Amino acid sequence: MNIVVTYDVNTETKEGRRRLRRVAKICEDYGQRVQYSVFECSVEPMQMDAMLAALSDEINTELDSLRIYRLYGQRSGAVYTLGRDSYRDFSAPLVI
Amino acid sequence: MNIVVTYDVNTETKEGRRRLRRVAKICEDYGQRVQYSVFECSVEPMQMDAMLAALSDEINTELDSLRIYRLYGQRSGAVYTLGRDSYRDFSAPLVI
Repeated sequence: MNIVVTYDVNTETKEGRRRLRRVAKICEDYGQRVQYSVFECSVEPMQMDAMLAALSDEINTELDSLRIYRLYGQRSGAVYTLGRDSYRDFSAPLVI
Repeated sequence: MNIVVTYDVNTETKEGRRRLRRVAKICEDYGQRVQYSVFECSVEPMQMDAMLAALSDEINTELDSLRIYRLYGQRSGAVYTLGRDSYRDFSAPLVI
């Protein structure tokens, strides 16, 4: 399934800045960064569970906000971009 | 249709900070802010066209990135949140 992960982590403290790095690292393990705090991931249900467990361990639920949006159907029909777009479709055939 | 708007606006210049404010203002006209640069909007096709036109006028396509994700089906089945969640369902019946 295709998902979009967005987060606001409170970075007023050293601990918050550590959480931010770890949340980003977890998201990088499962997908690609498309904006500063927005990731797109293509995951299987078991991977989703593992990702959620890891993120739940990091997020401070009082201070931070994390949202996961599930994209149904073809990704191309669910995403519109304007301006810079760093997304790379790794599922597309590699042309050498 | 339910959409999610995320953006990274380059704020290194005064002009960039002005763009950021105007992009946020446009998004506020069509929906609600759920994270610092993430909005959720429920729009009709004509509203979507008007919103895109307004955003296209503001975004610097060399410096900024704006993404719009379309959520299909029920919103409740497409959104998972962890931590702070400022979303208000204005379509729900008002209980006084």
